[in-house]
Amino acid sequence: MRRGRPAGGAVRVLALDAAQPFDFEHRARQKLAKEQQLTVGIVGFGTFGQFIAKRMVLAGHRVLATSRSPYQMQARSIGVDFYQDVDDFCEEHPEVVILCSSILSTAAVLRSLPVQRLKRNTLFVDVLSVKAFPKQLLLRELPPEMDILCTHPMFGPDSGKGSWRGLNFMYEVVRVGGDAGRMARIENLLRFFRSEGCRMVEMTCEEHDRQAASTQFVTHTVGRMLGEMELSSTDINTRGFEALLNLVENTSHDSFDLYYGLFLYNANATEELQRLEMAFDRVKKQLLGRMHDIVRQQLQLPEAGEPHPGSPGSQSPPSPQQQQQQQRLLSAVGQPPVLDFGGRGGAGSSSSAGEAVQVEVLAPEQQR
Amino acid sequence: MRRGRPAGGAVRVLALDAAQPFDFEHRARQKLAKEQQLTVGIVGFGTFGQFIAKRMVLAGHRVLATSRSPYQMQARSIGVDFYQDVDDFCEEHPEVVILCSSILSTAAVLRSLPVQRLKRNTLFVDVLSVKAFPKQLLLRELPPEMDILCTHPMFGPDSGKGSWRGLNFMYEVVRVGGDAGRMARIENLLRFFRSEGCRMVEMTCEEHDRQAASTQFVTHTVGRMLGEMELSSTDINTRGFEALLNLVENTSHDSFDLYYGLFLYNANATEELQRLEMAFDRVKKQLLGRMHDIVRQQLQLPEAGEPHPGSPGSQSPPSPQQQQQQQRLLSAVGQPPVLDFGGRGGAGSSSSAGEAVQVEVLAPEQQR
Repeated sequence: MRRGRPAGGAVRVLALDAAQPFDFEHRARQKLAKEQQLTVGIVGFGTFGQFIAKRMVLAGHRVLATSRSPYQMQARSIGVDFYQDVDDFCEEHPEVVILCSSILSTAAVLRSLPVQRLKRNTLFVDVLSVKAFPKQLLLRELPPEMDILCTHPMFGPDSGKGSWRGLNFMYEVVRVGGDAGRMARIENLLRFFRSEGCRMVEMTCEEHDRQAASTQFVTHTVGRMLGEMELSSTDINTRGFEALLNLVENTSHDSFDLYYGLFLYNANATEELQRLEMAFDRVKKQLLGRMHDIVRQQLQLPEAGEPHPGSPGSQSPPSPQQQQQQQRLLSAVGQPPVLDFGGRGGAGSSSSAGEAVQVEVLAPEQQR
Repeated sequence: MRRGRPAGGAVRVLALDAAQPFDFEHRARQKLAKEQQLTVGIVGFGTFGQFIAKRMVLAGHRVLATSRSPYQMQARSIGVDFYQDVDDFCEEHPEVVILCSSILSTAAVLRSLPVQRLKRNTLFVDVLSVKAFPKQLLLRELPPEMDILCTHPMFGPDSGKGSWRGLNFMYEVVRVGGDAGRMARIENLLRFFRSEGCRMVEMTCEEHDRQAASTQFVTHTVGRMLGEMELSSTDINTRGFEALLNLVENTSHDSFDLYYGLFLYNANATEELQRLEMAFDRVKKQLLGRMHDIVRQQLQLPEAGEPHPGSPGSQSPPSPQQQQQQQRLLSAVGQPPVLDFGGRGGAGSSSSAGEAVQVEVLAPEQQR
């Protein structure tokens, strides 16, 4: 079905990357009703900018782009007009300007944009993974005549590689002029994402950041934490562990800058980081607390609030070897041991688990 | 195809729970060649013991069980002979004894077993989630004539509810007498799990514990940690976050005793817990370190090893509001702030993320 020159040599050519028939863009645009076609300017033409642009071109919109780096080749291959000069870009009068810069550079990129060369009624759109920050930034920096739509397409070149079906697209209409055409233009842009299959979620930027801190930021943190551990697949993976390996794999595709951006520019992230830390501490304390109980029982020390315990069973005081093991376990949970058994040393010894603390705890047989 | 009385009233009857035709067991056993049929004794008849027993009966083996709790009803409904008296149980001379007690109670349960009433060539099998511990325990406690097979069926009533296809079954033949029939008996038992679809993994108990510490224990710890955070589903879940929610859901079905058992009886678990803690610290330090760099730049303080930095751009010293924000961010990562800005207070104020540290960091546009 495909026309055009056959791929030469050993170069691997994918359908989307290949040269399109000479009139491809023309025909794609014809498919769209004239009033639905948008002229979209992309500022920042890295991985994500190209990812979005490619789909918009295929849907029949006219797309232009600008970037500090020279992306002429990439732009041409997907049917995008590239302007190295940002003044030239603005003078093309895109109706919609999508900011595709990173979280950390967006403020600088926006301030370096000669917005006075754009039409006064331009619609500005951001696609950052944090939302209250660009909302405030755009409200503060842009002339009041310009419209503002804040969005978070919750996918990227990896997760949205094949289809966008069912993937979340969050948005808030932050500012829109009274003219009926202006709201129609926003709906036009949203229609593009809807027709690509996105699950459209309208919410405020502030609500987004609240929810994203406990979902996206926590997920990234766990992914990076496990990535730091350099976990690897084993012969006895459980399904839960495979889900974690998968998470590490996905997180490793994201830059530290993105993660740092989620942390620095989402006011709720610091609280979530503390909650995660406290949760980890509670889990460790549960393990430690339980071990303390056993050790105290074995030493026949009084429990807290129970000065004279009955001796339930025939428990003998622990052997020096058991004491060593207990000491090792207690210090392992990262807390200074409360009880000093004297029998330190041997920290490097590898006593087998078979000689672990032998306690007659008669738990139910529910769990192995 | 099914005969027998119809279920009465409003009781919901599932195929497996329903009364079987009077000759069901007889016919099931007939299906198995006589030399393949085993007489299996289950010690500890909680959730897991019943789960295993049910499948063995359906496969045509004769199953008896004993437990401290009275499980006569449950046993009868699945075609298992139940013995409240453990001496009676042993005198039935099961060829195979499967220990289905919890990690914490196994040593006590084994010691309370009158093994002298069993045949001298009995095969003992454990199914615990830790392995070096029961291996040593069984080698130490059982008469030398008895065979030992250590196993870890890596599934339970939840994950193995429908089929066992593809689920890991780890095992080590720890001790087996010279008689040819003894090895055949072990292979007979393994054949049962293989024919149920399990993925058979032969490895030493020590290797299991090494691998399980970095898979199963880490997975449980992350699940419990996120469970402590009480994360909940939002309107903007990512797929990674949904994998985490799923993990929390699965972990919440396991008791703290199981988790504690994995920790206490796997000698490698303490090291993995420390590795997890250190990995978390490294992630936090990366966030903190990056923030320090920015703050130092803004205050025009020398970088470490760079006494006189060139001033790259038009950076003005931070406003008192920015200093407050920085202070808040720095203390949020759980470290005492190195720099004292003087301008404390207002810790409870909710300055919006839009007023976050404004730094002209010109990062590439790769990431949002």
